[in-house]
Amino acid sequence: MTDNSELSLLMIEEAHRLIAPHILRTPLLRADALDEAAGGRVYCKAECLQLTGSFKLRGALNHLLSLTEEERHKGVVAYSSGNHAQGVARAAKIAGAPAAIVMPADAPLAKRERTARDGAEVILYDRETESREEIGAKLAAERGAKLVPPYDHPLTMAGQGTAGLELAEDIPDAPDQVLICCSGGGLAAGIGTAVRASYPNAEIITVEPEGFGDMAATLESGERRRNPAKGGSICDALLVETPGELTLPVLQTLGARGVTVTDDDALAAMAFAMRELRVVLEPGGAVALAAVLSGKVQTKGRTTALILSGGNADPELLLQALKSN
Amino acid sequence: MTDNSELSLLMIEEAHRLIAPHILRTPLLRADALDEAAGGRVYCKAECLQLTGSFKLRGALNHLLSLTEEERHKGVVAYSSGNHAQGVARAAKIAGAPAAIVMPADAPLAKRERTARDGAEVILYDRETESREEIGAKLAAERGAKLVPPYDHPLTMAGQGTAGLELAEDIPDAPDQVLICCSGGGLAAGIGTAVRASYPNAEIITVEPEGFGDMAATLESGERRRNPAKGGSICDALLVETPGELTLPVLQTLGARGVTVTDDDALAAMAFAMRELRVVLEPGGAVALAAVLSGKVQTKGRTTALILSGGNADPELLLQALKSN
Repeated sequence: MTDNSELSLLMIEEAHRLIAPHILRTPLLRADALDEAAGGRVYCKAECLQLTGSFKLRGALNHLLSLTEEERHKGVVAYSSGNHAQGVARAAKIAGAPAAIVMPADAPLAKRERTARDGAEVILYDRETESREEIGAKLAAERGAKLVPPYDHPLTMAGQGTAGLELAEDIPDAPDQVLICCSGGGLAAGIGTAVRASYPNAEIITVEPEGFGDMAATLESGERRRNPAKGGSICDALLVETPGELTLPVLQTLGARGVTVTDDDALAAMAFAMRELRVVLEPGGAVALAAVLSGKVQTKGRTTALILSGGNADPELLLQALKSN
Repeated sequence: MTDNSELSLLMIEEAHRLIAPHILRTPLLRADALDEAAGGRVYCKAECLQLTGSFKLRGALNHLLSLTEEERHKGVVAYSSGNHAQGVARAAKIAGAPAAIVMPADAPLAKRERTARDGAEVILYDRETESREEIGAKLAAERGAKLVPPYDHPLTMAGQGTAGLELAEDIPDAPDQVLICCSGGGLAAGIGTAVRASYPNAEIITVEPEGFGDMAATLESGERRRNPAKGGSICDALLVETPGELTLPVLQTLGARGVTVTDDDALAAMAFAMRELRVVLEPGGAVALAAVLSGKVQTKGRTTALILSGGNADPELLLQALKSN
């Protein structure tokens, strides 16, 4: 594979050939109740059903399966408190490579355990006083291990883009718009590139939590914006401070735009997904569906595709979503 | 199609050609956590993700799409308080046929509304004083409409069997056993027949709620058994009194046997499914998974396929499952 920073359909197709034997080809779900709510046809790519519970396995596998024999022996390093950690740990297990994952000491025990269950070495750090980037870079240098970035790398973007390739192949109607849950923008850049190759007129729309709409603001203004807060939304998977260096130009070239939804919108979408689609979503994985249900995008008379990007929700949040909706 | 009471692979293949454009090819889910719990490989056919939330759409569509033009105009009649009602209503909508569904007056409002939402005429009856079979037969006679039986009909069994056809095509390893949620036995007869055609050594195992193990008792004794109670399990979809006239001989020919699980086993399986597979199950749709998790079948070192047959659970039950597990 190339180290080129550009992202192409060819790279996404190469990634798909590499990872397809190891992932679930997730279904496109639809429901009459959703079409009625939207006033149009809506298709949902259910990456919450993906192994490890999110699309992150795709990008991680694309890295791990692209390593040389020697690189694989030295292993990989990643930092993440959540879905990327689990994706990299599983991908390393599949590839037979050692993995060290740098996680905050206050990360949920369940996520630490799942990461360790796949054989990864979990290295804890203090969010307040230490930098995960420094720890990760130091570890990688010491071990000669490769760092697997969560979004800002062509292999990551191409890997996540394989979900868009499948979506474009499986969708029975031409989508007018594609809604993608967005943090650093790797999934949106990958899916946008893949879908546009088949559907040049499909609008690419990123969806973020309110207060963390750095991608929407950056795409709208054309100038890099940063979120004022570091935390405070229940959408813990979508709290990156500013768009990626590599993902942003891809999305700008695609003419993408962004919208935001509230935490309550995300909770309502989680409850709707359990009731009408029979899938479990985490809040960050529900924001694209929430954008449809809360009317943040125009869906009437249009065909909308959206990504249900992850389903690793704490039971307490599921209870909260069910009780309040 | 034939009115032959026998069930053959050919009939299931014909059914699949007929209904495939209108259904979701549901994914085979797996999870390392499930394999670890089982001590072997486990594949789960997620019919809870099927349109209308259960496999029942398959059999209903096979009936509706097999009608002649004249029969379609006269429409269909069915009786059911739950998933079969929704399956027939949706199938009739797809086929453009009128449908009358006889439902108990005390059926959950949500189920009545979903059935009516698909344009079916909902006819309520009193469980205590009226017979749904009589009302259904009378309606069908008056209107010249066809009755769509929930399990005891070759078209129903063949339609449900299409899930087994997909399972046999999609499963990467030969299954040693296939576990199927069982009420009247239509799904088990259909899937058993389809899977055995590809995997002649696969054991076919029906799973029922404790206290409603009429199929298990009948298969074991060779004599027709009836459940002592009419209700009292949370697995409301699996409370048929005795095996079907047509389904039983099919399962006997397959050498099937049956096991039962408790309501608590089903609730624990629902919670496990939300956490590890990210799907929502109703209690009756969770019993095959429950049989694995509770150790009611031998899974160690074996490859097990099972059906997650439905996901139309009341939110209260999801809350109960999450809180107690």
